[in-house]
Amino acid sequence: MHSIQLNPLGSMSQLSQLEVDSLSKSADGELYQLFRNCCLAVLYSGAEIDNCENIFEPHHDFDIKLISRERGVKIELINPPAQAFVDGKLIKGVHEHIFAVLRDLLHIGAKYALNKHLGNDDSAYITNSVFDMLRHAQALKNTAELNLVVCWGGHSIGEIEYQYTKEVGYQLGLRELNICTGCGPGAMKGPMKGATIGHAKQRYKNVRYLGITEPSIIAAEPPNAIVNELVIMPDIEKRLEAFVRMSHAIIIFPGGAGTAEELLYLIGIMLNEQNKEQILPVILTGPEQSKAYFESLDNFIGLTLGKEAQSLYEIIVGDPARVASTIKQKQALVKNYRKATGDSFDYNWSLKILPQFQQPFIPTHKNMAGLNLHFDQPKAELAANLRKAFSGIVAGNVKAEGVKLIREKGPFQLHGDKALMDLMDTLLESFVKQQRMKLPGSDYQPCYQVIKE
Amino acid sequence: MHSIQLNPLGSMSQLSQLEVDSLSKSADGELYQLFRNCCLAVLYSGAEIDNCENIFEPHHDFDIKLISRERGVKIELINPPAQAFVDGKLIKGVHEHIFAVLRDLLHIGAKYALNKHLGNDDSAYITNSVFDMLRHAQALKNTAELNLVVCWGGHSIGEIEYQYTKEVGYQLGLRELNICTGCGPGAMKGPMKGATIGHAKQRYKNVRYLGITEPSIIAAEPPNAIVNELVIMPDIEKRLEAFVRMSHAIIIFPGGAGTAEELLYLIGIMLNEQNKEQILPVILTGPEQSKAYFESLDNFIGLTLGKEAQSLYEIIVGDPARVASTIKQKQALVKNYRKATGDSFDYNWSLKILPQFQQPFIPTHKNMAGLNLHFDQPKAELAANLRKAFSGIVAGNVKAEGVKLIREKGPFQLHGDKALMDLMDTLLESFVKQQRMKLPGSDYQPCYQVIKE
Amino acid sequence: MHSIQLNPLGSMSQLSQLEVDSLSKSADGELYQLFRNCCLAVLYSGAEIDNCENIFEPHHDFDIKLISRERGVKIELINPPAQAFVDGKLIKGVHEHIFAVLRDLLHIGAKYALNKHLGNDDSAYITNSVFDMLRHAQALKNTAELNLVVCWGGHSIGEIEYQYTKEVGYQLGLRELNICTGCGPGAMKGPMKGATIGHAKQRYKNVRYLGITEPSIIAAEPPNAIVNELVIMPDIEKRLEAFVRMSHAIIIFPGGAGTAEELLYLIGIMLNEQNKEQILPVILTGPEQSKAYFESLDNFIGLTLGKEAQSLYEIIVGDPARVASTIKQKQALVKNYRKATGDSFDYNWSLKILPQFQQPFIPTHKNMAGLNLHFDQPKAELAANLRKAFSGIVAGNVKAEGVKLIREKGPFQLHGDKALMDLMDTLLESFVKQQRMKLPGSDYQPCYQVIKE
Amino acid sequence: MHSIQLNPLGSMSQLSQLEVDSLSKSADGELYQLFRNCCLAVLYSGAEIDNCENIFEPHHDFDIKLISRERGVKIELINPPAQAFVDGKLIKGVHEHIFAVLRDLLHIGAKYALNKHLGNDDSAYITNSVFDMLRHAQALKNTAELNLVVCWGGHSIGEIEYQYTKEVGYQLGLRELNICTGCGPGAMKGPMKGATIGHAKQRYKNVRYLGITEPSIIAAEPPNAIVNELVIMPDIEKRLEAFVRMSHAIIIFPGGAGTAEELLYLIGIMLNEQNKEQILPVILTGPEQSKAYFESLDNFIGLTLGKEAQSLYEIIVGDPARVASTIKQKQALVKNYRKATGDSFDYNWSLKILPQFQQPFIPTHKNMAGLNLHFDQPKAELAANLRKAFSGIVAGNVKAEGVKLIREKGPFQLHGDKALMDLMDTLLESFVKQQRMKLPGSDYQPCYQVIKE
Repeated sequence: MHSIQLNPLGSMSQLSQLEVDSLSKSADGELYQLFRNCCLAVLYSGAEIDNCENIFEPHHDFDIKLISRERGVKIELINPPAQAFVDGKLIKGVHEHIFAVLRDLLHIGAKYALNKHLGNDDSAYITNSVFDMLRHAQALKNTAELNLVVCWGGHSIGEIEYQYTKEVGYQLGLRELNICTGCGPGAMKGPMKGATIGHAKQRYKNVRYLGITEPSIIAAEPPNAIVNELVIMPDIEKRLEAFVRMSHAIIIFPGGAGTAEELLYLIGIMLNEQNKEQILPVILTGPEQSKAYFESLDNFIGLTLGKEAQSLYEIIVGDPARVASTIKQKQALVKNYRKATGDSFDYNWSLKILPQFQQPFIPTHKNMAGLNLHFDQPKAELAANLRKAFSGIVAGNVKAEGVKLIREKGPFQLHGDKALMDLMDTLLESFVKQQRMKLPGSDYQPCYQVIKE
Repeated sequence: MHSIQLNPLGSMSQLSQLEVDSLSKSADGELYQLFRNCCLAVLYSGAEIDNCENIFEPHHDFDIKLISRERGVKIELINPPAQAFVDGKLIKGVHEHIFAVLRDLLHIGAKYALNKHLGNDDSAYITNSVFDMLRHAQALKNTAELNLVVCWGGHSIGEIEYQYTKEVGYQLGLRELNICTGCGPGAMKGPMKGATIGHAKQRYKNVRYLGITEPSIIAAEPPNAIVNELVIMPDIEKRLEAFVRMSHAIIIFPGGAGTAEELLYLIGIMLNEQNKEQILPVILTGPEQSKAYFESLDNFIGLTLGKEAQSLYEIIVGDPARVASTIKQKQALVKNYRKATGDSFDYNWSLKILPQFQQPFIPTHKNMAGLNLHFDQPKAELAANLRKAFSGIVAGNVKAEGVKLIREKGPFQLHGDKALMDLMDTLLESFVKQQRMKLPGSDYQPCYQVIKE
Repeated sequence: MHSIQLNPLGSMSQLSQLEVDSLSKSADGELYQLFRNCCLAVLYSGAEIDNCENIFEPHHDFDIKLISRERGVKIELINPPAQAFVDGKLIKGVHEHIFAVLRDLLHIGAKYALNKHLGNDDSAYITNSVFDMLRHAQALKNTAELNLVVCWGGHSIGEIEYQYTKEVGYQLGLRELNICTGCGPGAMKGPMKGATIGHAKQRYKNVRYLGITEPSIIAAEPPNAIVNELVIMPDIEKRLEAFVRMSHAIIIFPGGAGTAEELLYLIGIMLNEQNKEQILPVILTGPEQSKAYFESLDNFIGLTLGKEAQSLYEIIVGDPARVASTIKQKQALVKNYRKATGDSFDYNWSLKILPQFQQPFIPTHKNMAGLNLHFDQPKAELAANLRKAFSGIVAGNVKAEGVKLIREKGPFQLHGDKALMDLMDTLLESFVKQQRMKLPGSDYQPCYQVIKE
Repeated sequence: MHSIQLNPLGSMSQLSQLEVDSLSKSADGELYQLFRNCCLAVLYSGAEIDNCENIFEPHHDFDIKLISRERGVKIELINPPAQAFVDGKLIKGVHEHIFAVLRDLLHIGAKYALNKHLGNDDSAYITNSVFDMLRHAQALKNTAELNLVVCWGGHSIGEIEYQYTKEVGYQLGLRELNICTGCGPGAMKGPMKGATIGHAKQRYKNVRYLGITEPSIIAAEPPNAIVNELVIMPDIEKRLEAFVRMSHAIIIFPGGAGTAEELLYLIGIMLNEQNKEQILPVILTGPEQSKAYFESLDNFIGLTLGKEAQSLYEIIVGDPARVASTIKQKQALVKNYRKATGDSFDYNWSLKILPQFQQPFIPTHKNMAGLNLHFDQPKAELAANLRKAFSGIVAGNVKAEGVKLIREKGPFQLHGDKALMDLMDTLLESFVKQQRMKLPGSDYQPCYQVIKE
C-alpha cells in the first residue's frame, strides 16, 4: 500500500471535528464517495481521457482520509495514480485542486442538500446560492478589472484547432485578459496554456485560469494543473449560471454536444426581453479549417431560433488577434453598463435567468422522450428544450450515471417536428463524423435516436 | 443631514441580495438594530466611555444603510459621531471594524439564531460553533507561530497601571508576541499600543491586535482603532471560549468584576481533571503599586478555591521584561504539547470545557438570586457559579440590558455561606474603592447586594 | 570574549572580495575604524546619551569582522554592548542599521574620498553626489506620495516637549505622513513613536521613519530602532542638503545649537531669489510651555535676518492637529509645483543651494574666529555664516573631533558686531539655561566665547 | 513622426542630471549610440532574425530620448518598430528590457570604460567587475535555492529540436528550476517557454528567465519578452564568466559555432587542476534526431581535448524528464559544496578562471591568423585557443563589427596542425549543412578558411 499525506492549503485548511466526521468513510458515505471520486479525477490532471471508467476501474484500491494535525487537516491519499506526481511529489496545482474539492463539497454538503431537489428552488434563491458558492470559493475577486473571458469548446478537437485555441489564449493573455473554462482537455486547456505565455510577457500578476466543473463530469474532464482556481458546482445548471454571471465575454471554439448545450443555454437567456440591454460579447471562432463547422452551427441556429438569435454572436475565423482585440475593446462597454446599473463587476446580478434554465434537468429516458421539440413555442422555450436535449446527450456520452442508463436501457429517444429533427440529426451526425463526441480512438455509439414525427 | 459612504473592505465586501435585505431597516429589524448599535459603538473608537447611554442617547439620528454597488456593498453612515474622523475622513482601522461587524452579524444571523437559545446546545456543537465563527472571521491563521497572548484586565485603571500595561505590551512586542484583548480602554488598549512600538523595532510583520467582543458590551468597550482584527461573538460564554481556545498564554492585569469573571472562568476550566496535562501559561501582573491588589485577589482564590487553583497562575509584580520572557520561554512547551496531541496551533480543541461554562447565563434577578454560592460543592462547580455571579455584576454595571434591569428592579441579590459572602463582599468593596467598577468621574452605585446566610 | 554573527540583510548583503578586504582591520584602517565606531554607536540604539566618550570608552574591546558565507556576508560583533539585545537576540531594527552603515560607508569609501576635500567640488557635482548616495541607499522611493515631513529639534528636551513631539507625530501619522529626522533621542524620536501609532490606526503600509545622520555625530545621537531607513551622509553639509531636497514639509521643534543651525541653513537657502517660487511648508511648533522659546528665536531671526526671513515659517503653539492638517493641506501645492516644473517628487532638484552652504565647514579655532559675523553683508551671506557658527558650537558640544579640540585649546572665539554678538549671546545663554545644549545631568561648559567688537 | 513615452521602471528609474546628460545625443555620442542600438534590438523582441542589418537598416529614423519627470526619467521612443506593441501598447516585458539596457549601459559607462582595454585587467579585478555588474543588475538574489540552470544552444535549430528544448524547459519548470540563457530565438527561447508552463503548474513564484547578453550580439539575438531579467555584459568573455559563476547546472542543446565556443570555454576552465573539486552538472541533450550531432561533437572533443574533457559532461538523448531529474538530484551536491567552502550560492567565487579566458579576444584577421591551433600545448591552452577560434567565427557570422570586417577583407584564416584542422573542418562543415550557422533561408557564406599545415 502506497500512501502520501498532503499539507493543508487554502481557506479550508482548518476544519471542525464535525466537518472531518462528515467526510469519513464510516459516515453515511454519500459525501465521502463523492469526495473520493472527485479527488481521483483531479489526480488525473491533464489526462486526455473522457471515459470515467478509465479512471475509476483501475483504482479500486484508491482511498482518501482526513487527518487532523496541528497545522490543519491533512489529506492522506492511499494508492493514488502516478499521473500527477513529479519525482514522487504531487504537482502543487493538483494539490490545490484536492483542497478545492474538499472546500466545495463540504460547503455544498452542509448547505445545499446535494443530489436532491432543493427544498427552496425559486429563481432568486438559486441565483443567491450560486453567488454564495462562488463567494465561498473566493472566486469573486472584487477587482476593478472586468477581464474574465469564458472559453467554451470541445474536449475532443484536432491538433490544428487545439493550436488555434492556444493562439487565441496567447492573444488574450497579451491583453491581460483572464480565462475561465469548464476544465478538461482540448478547447478548455489550450486557451489557458496560451494565456500563460501572454501573461508572462506582460508580467501580468492577477492571472486567473478558472475552472468551473461539476461532480458528475469532473472524471470525464479532469482539470489541467494550470487551472489556478477550481470550483465545483453541484449540477450543470448552476455551473452554467456561474459561467454566464461571472463572464465579461464568451468565446466559443468548435466542440460537440456540450458546446451546443452551452450555446443554446446562452441564446435562450439572451433572447429574454429583460436582457435586451445586457452587454455580453460572444464570439464563435476557430481556424480556417473550422469554417464549415461554424457555418453549419450558425445555420442550425438560424433555422431553429431565427435571426435574432444569430445576432447575439459574432463569428471570426482564423484571426486570434482580432478575437482578442474585439473583446478588449468591448470591455469598456461592459464596465459602463455595470456602473450605470450599479451591478457587481464580478457577478452579473441583473441578468435575468428563467426557471426553465435553472431547474436541474435529470436526463432519464422518460424526461428525454418528453421534451417538447416542436417549432410552435416561443424561441426561448425552444432554446431551453434544445439545451436539455443536448445536455442529455452529454450525460449519455460521458457522465457516469448517463452512461450506465444508456447501457441498461439503450439510447434516449428524442421526439419532435420532422423538420427540427432533421436539423438535429444533421448537426449531431456532423459532430460524430468530426469525432467531437468522444476522444478519437474510441468507437462512438450514439446514445440517442432522433424520432421524426 | 450629514452622510458618508464607506467602500467595501475584506472578505464580505460582496453580499447577496438576500443578505442586503436581511440588514435593512424594513426587515424584522432585530438584526438591523443590532448592526446599527454595534457600528455606532465602533465609531466611538478609543473613547474612554463605559456607559452605553453616553453613546446611544446623543445619536438618535444616527442611521446606517447598505448600498449595492459595482465594486461591492457600500455602507452609508448617516449623522455619524465625529470621534473617528480625521479631517473628515474615517480612520481606516474603524472603517475595517464596521465591515467586521457586518461580517460577523450576518454570519451569526444566518447561522446561529442570535439572542435565542440555540436549538442544539450540546457541548461539542457549541465548541464547533465557536470554531466556525472564528474561522469565518479569518481569525484562525494557520501559522507556525504560537504567539497569541490574551491580555485581560480592567477598562478602568489608573495612569500608573496603564503605563505598566503599555510597558508589558512593549516587551511582548519586542519578543514578537501578539496581543488579544476584549477591546475597550485601559488594560485592553495599553498592551496593544506598547506592542506596536515593540513590533516596529523588530520589523515584525504578522502583527495581530485581536479584539474579541460581544454585541451587549461593545458600546461599553468601544474597540481602539489599533485593533486590526475585530471579532464579535454572540455572548460572553462563547467569547470566553474563543479567548481560551485561541490563547497561547494569558496575562491578567488589575481589573474589576469583568476581570474576576475571566479569572474564575479560567480556573474553573483548568481545575477539570481532563485538563491536567494542558499547558497554558497564566501570569497575573501589575506595577509595584498593584501588589496589594493581587494579594487580595490571590487570597480570595486561595480561600474559596484552594491551593490547586492558586497553582494555576504565577504572580509577577513590577517586571514587564520578566513577564514577557517567561511567556516566550514557555512557547516551546505549548508547541510541543500541541504537536504531541496533534491539536491545532490555532484552536485548542483538546481543552475540555463543561456545559456549565458554555450555556449562556442570563443575569436576571431570579437567576442571580438562585446561584449556589456555598462551599459544599466541587471546586470547579463553585468556580462556575462565582463566575456567573461576577458576570451578572458586569451586566448590571455596563451592559445595556443589565443596567435597565437594575434601574427597574433594584440591585441583584446574591445568597450564600456567610464566610463566602464575606470574602466576596471584601473583594467587591475593594474594587469599588479602587474605582475599578466604573470609569472615574461616575458615582458608582453597586448593582448587587451580598446576603449572608 | 562574547561574539555574535549577524545574517546579511538588504541590498548589500553580497559583497565582493575587494569590498570585504577594504573593511578589514589590516587594511589602511581608516574605513575600518569608521565602520567600527558607527556600528558601536548604532548598538546604543535609543540610548539617552550625547557624549560619544560614554559610548567609546567602556568598549575598547568591541570589535567587528566581515565573514563571507554562502548566503552573503555575515557581520561578527565581538563584545557588543548589551543595549540592543532582547533575551540575547539583537533587535531586528538595529540589525538593519548595522547593514545600513556597511552599505553607506562602502559606497562613500569607494566613491567619495571620505573625510578629504573632494577633488570635484562644484555645486552641481555635490548635488549629484547627494542624490547618488540617497539613491544607493534606496531612499528615493519613486512613489506618488509627497509625504515626507522632516522634523528637526533638540535631542535634549523636557518631558512636556517630548510628549508634544509624540502627539504631533501621532497627528502626522493619522494623516499618512511620514517622518524624517536626524536620529537620536528627544525631538528626533518622539515624532516617530507617535506616527507609529497613527500609522497603525490607518493601516498605513508605506511607513517611513527615515534617519539621516553622519559619522561624526552618530555616536552622540544613536538612532532609535524605530528608524526603518538609516542613511549616513559624509558630512553635515551633505546631510542638510539631503534633508531639504527630500523634504515635502519641515517641522522645527524646540532645540539648541543644532536646531538653530538647521533653521539658519534653511532660511539662508530660501532667501535666495532663485528659490522664491519654491513651496516648502515650514512650521515651528511646541507646547504652550515653549511659547517663550519660539518668541526669542523668532526675535533673533527678525533682528538679524529681517522680516522676509520671518515670513518663511509659521509658528503654531500647542496644537498638534493643526500642525498636521496644515501640512496635509499644503501637500497638494507641493505636488502641483513639482509637476509644473517636472521636478522629481523625491528629490527637489530645482532648489538652488549656493556653494557656501555646500562646502564642508571645518570648525577649527581659526575658522571659527574668522567667521564674518557682521550686519553689513547680504542676509543670505549672514545666514550662511551664522549657520557655520552654530555648526561649530554643535561640534564643540558633542562631536568627538570638536570636543577634543576644545579640550586641547579652550573655547572657540566668535567675533562680530556688538549688536549681533549680544543677540547671539542672549540666545545661546537661553539654550544653556533651558538645558538644550547637553542632556540634563551633565554640567555644561560653553565651548565658545562671544567677543563683541 | 510617431513617438511614445515609457514610464520609468526598476532600480534606475531615478537618474541624476549627470546621467541624463551622458546619454544624450549631444554628448560624446558613443554611449548614446550604444544605448539607441541596444534598445532598437530589444524592440525586436522575439524576432527570428540573426542579421543585425535587418534590424538597423530599416530604422534609420528611430531615435531615443530621456525626459526627466516628477516620477522619474521617462524614455521617449521615436519611430519605434511595431514588433513589440499590442494594440499600440508596448509589451511590459520589453518595456522592462529597455530600462535594463539603460541601467546596465549607464553602469558600464560610468565604471568600466566600455569598449576599451580596462586599465586594470588582472584576473581578480575582472572577477570583481563581473560580480559588481551582476549585483548592480540585481541578478544576485541571495536566496537559498540553487536552481539556476544555464541553457546553451543554437539560435537556429529545427522544429523538432525546438519542441525538445521546450519539453526540457517544461520538465525543469516542474522541478522548480529556473532558466538562464543568452537571449535570442531557438534553444535560448524554448526552455523558457516550457518552464513557464511547468512553473505555472507548480505555482512557483520566484521564476527567473534570466537573459545575459552583450551589446555586440543583442541585435542578432533579440531577447524574448519572457526574459524577466535582462543583463548586458560588456563583452563575450565577461558574459561567459557571468554564465558559469551564476550557474548551478548547465544544459547544452544542439547549436553552431557559438555553442561550440561555450562548450570549449567551459571545458577549458574545468580542466584546470584547481577546479577539480568543483561540482557543476553539465548535460548535452537533444531529441533522438540529434544523436548524430552529439556524437560528432563528442568525437571532436575526445580527439582534440581527450577523455578527461569528455568526462566533464553527460550526454542524454531524447529524455527530457531524465535531464531535469538528473539536475534536480545533483542540486544537493552543489549546495553541499558551496556550504563546505563557504562560497556564495549566487556567484561561484571559488571557480578558478585563468586570464586567457578572461582577456577580451578581438577577432581581427591578424588575431585569428595568429591563434595557436596545434596539439603540442596543454589541453586547457588548446581549449582556450579553440574557444577563440569559434568566438571569431561567431563574430564573423553575426556580430556587426565582425560582419563588416569579413565583408572588407574576406574570410578569417585559421592555421594549425593538419589533423586538428581536419577535425575543425569536419565539425564546421556539419554545422553549415545542418543550417546551424545562420537562420534557414539565408545563404550561408563561411567567414573562415581552414588552412592545414
